[in-house]
Amino acid sequence: MRQTTLALGLAAVLLTAAPAYAQFAKPLDAVKYRQSAFIIMATSFGRLGAMVQGKAPFDAKAALENAKIVEFMSHLPWQAFQPGTDLPDSHAKPEIWKEMDKFKADAGKLQEMTPKLVAAAQTGKLDEIKVVFGQTAKTCKACHDSFREEL
Amino acid sequence: MRQTTLALGLAAVLLTAAPAYAQFAKPLDAVKYRQSAFIIMATSFGRLGAMVQGKAPFDAKAALENAKIVEFMSHLPWQAFQPGTDLPDSHAKPEIWKEMDKFKADAGKLQEMTPKLVAAAQTGKLDEIKVVFGQTAKTCKACHDSFREEL
Repeated sequence: MRQTTLALGLAAVLLTAAPAYAQFAKPLDAVKYRQSAFIIMATSFGRLGAMVQGKAPFDAKAALENAKIVEFMSHLPWQAFQPGTDLPDSHAKPEIWKEMDKFKADAGKLQEMTPKLVAAAQTGKLDEIKVVFGQTAKTCKACHDSFREEL
Repeated sequence: MRQTTLALGLAAVLLTAAPAYAQFAKPLDAVKYRQSAFIIMATSFGRLGAMVQGKAPFDAKAALENAKIVEFMSHLPWQAFQPGTDLPDSHAKPEIWKEMDKFKADAGKLQEMTPKLVAAAQTGKLDEIKVVFGQTAKTCKACHDSFREEL
């Protein structure tokens, strides 16, 4: 019991827990969260891309691991586009909040593709991955064109 | 075929693919990657913590989702502690590279705990989660004490 209490105390110090009423304690936390999710996703998608483009040797195991990371991460960033998180150092265009339905639909298109990317990687065939990688990249680009500002 | 070529071209523009010979193109990319992984992990661990500490209402479904995120993310940051990524704006202490075996062992302890956290969340019982949450928090703190600099 004492150990648990101690550990919970430590956890309280370690963590900035979001208050009960909010997903994120501060708008900047939401921005950092979604940027983090995109960084992880883009890193794995980039590694897949390097294989697909012949810039890195094809490694079926690594391709599958990276596809699974892309799939997992494709569910995370969207919750963090809350009202009031349109901060100056964010790449988010104001259109996100003006056209939230379209934004969510675009996110949904990515989420439809990423399990297919995992399935393609599970075949262990680079040609299969290449096709789905290209389709997935188009969902990224379509959403970026509408909603991502280059800073 | 043209579509695939187009999409691959887009992907090349969209992404900063790591070169074939490296996990990360630049040391700063590695720092951002591991910081991103910790941000995602800490956010979910913080949400669990809020429930465990009674600061947020217990939501079994959200608890399980967050436990799964913690478990998934517990595998990602470590690859990014490459030699040469000890940058000034990083929280990483130089001890990481001096005592890499201990650092990896600490990471392993977290990775042993996180599936247990998911299993606890799958019971749907806050008391079960509380115990494993506390144990997991101690693995975070032990590693932070040795290897994380407060900036």
